Amino acid sequence: MPGDTTLPPRENETSRGSYPVSERNKLRRVHERGRYDREAVHAVLDAAMLCHVAYSIEGEPYCTPTIHWREGDRLYWHGSSASRMLRQLKAGARVCLTVSHLDGLVLARSGFHHSVNYRSAMCFGTARIVDDRHEKEHALETLIERFYPGRARLLRPLEPQEVKATMVIGMEIEEASAKMRAAGVGDDEDDYALPIWAGVIPVRTVVDPLEACSRLLSDVPVPEGLSGFAPGRGLDEVLLENQRLYEMGAG
Amino acid sequence: MPGDTTLPPRENETSRGSYPVSERNKLRRVHERGRYDREAVHAVLDAAMLCHVAYSIEGEPYCTPTIHWREGDRLYWHGSSASRMLRQLKAGARVCLTVSHLDGLVLARSGFHHSVNYRSAMCFGTARIVDDRHEKEHALETLIERFYPGRARLLRPLEPQEVKATMVIGMEIEEASAKMRAAGVGDDEDDYALPIWAGVIPVRTVVDPLEACSRLLSDVPVPEGLSGFAPGRGLDEVLLENQRLYEMGAG
Repeated sequence: MPGDTTLPPRENETSRGSYPVSERNKLRRVHERGRYDREAVHAVLDAAMLCHVAYSIEGEPYCTPTIHWREGDRLYWHGSSASRMLRQLKAGARVCLTVSHLDGLVLARSGFHHSVNYRSAMCFGTARIVDDRHEKEHALETLIERFYPGRARLLRPLEPQEVKATMVIGMEIEEASAKMRAAGVGDDEDDYALPIWAGVIPVRTVVDPLEACSRLLSDVPVPEGLSGFAPGRGLDEVLLENQRLYEMGAG
Repeated sequence: MPGDTTLPPRENETSRGSYPVSERNKLRRVHERGRYDREAVHAVLDAAMLCHVAYSIEGEPYCTPTIHWREGDRLYWHGSSASRMLRQLKAGARVCLTVSHLDGLVLARSGFHHSVNYRSAMCFGTARIVDDRHEKEHALETLIERFYPGRARLLRPLEPQEVKATMVIGMEIEEASAKMRAAGVGDDEDDYALPIWAGVIPVRTVVDPLEACSRLLSDVPVPEGLSGFAPGRGLDEVLLENQRLYEMGAG
């Protein structure tokens, strides 16, 4: 991760290269484009703020939405220390963290070939509570900096009890895969001659104009670090850009 | 479900009322707004096409993104019969299906009060393969009609081998909860006096202009049933509207 000198380099961390392929992350549906390389997996992860984490408690699966962020091959997410997931994870639980982007609805001439355009990444590993104070404070700063360049130094500093009340979870990505579809309609050859409308309805998650807090002091401008969040831009594009800024140490 | 006469009414199905509360779906974080009523849970589910399904195979959790649709208290999703998830579910697996909408990024004056606006629903139940031919064909038609009003009758009919190659999963929602945050910045009282920009960055998943298939016959117009997908509209709004149209039997 060029420019990041805060965390010591870890074993097996390379910014390129592929994640190992196992029974867990092996892609089964060969007609969809799947990749195991870090570049593809990280591109999906870094373009999102929202992820879903699967874990089990006494055999019962849970799928919890949360905010994630990445440092190299390490994923972080967080929550209240009261949360069920986090209490479970104290023991060091197996988890699967998945990020998905919906990019378009694909309408074919037959029901069978209806599809969606999307990008997704599934990451497998063992989650652990981050309780080392240095790592935890660094992770919470990264949570701000990675999404909002330059923001950490503008804020009222965290109080010790706030750090305590926030649970940070970390997971080394042991295995991962990315899948995507970015294509037009794929109909059966004979069906193209049918007089049926077919096409793609693109969908995009965009940034709307910023809404200042109603109690904002009158002379406080929007910080320069938020300029990426320009109305109409794709959220994925902004988040990817801000992750790259963070990695370059520009945050 | 008014207007739907295709499926027989099922026990315990009411369009209103609440899902039972258990250790599984009980909300732990009381400061966020949680609800157990069908109206709230269905509103989150129906506004989305993409969900994430958590399940376990030999103790290992998986979080798989897929497309879901709803009929009353029953959720459906589907995939290739080659998929790992679907082979596992043949045995009747416990699953948690979660839908989340990210509505805004909340930037406070302290790191601790940074948050997001969102809507999410978690649904618990036992998934089963839908192998009854009548239910399966009906479910596949619903998959089209529920998202694209009036489209099923316009399409080239499904071939028997296509029905066979598609696996449909069904699950009665046994327990569910919905959570949301839709608010401005909630800072500590003393912090409002600080000269720090705070506010909300709203995000929205919108429909972009339709892209016709490059091989579309020249005289085929966009069907009226797709008029809801007007450029700039929120996808959640369109999907919710189309679900209501489907339930009214107008699809």
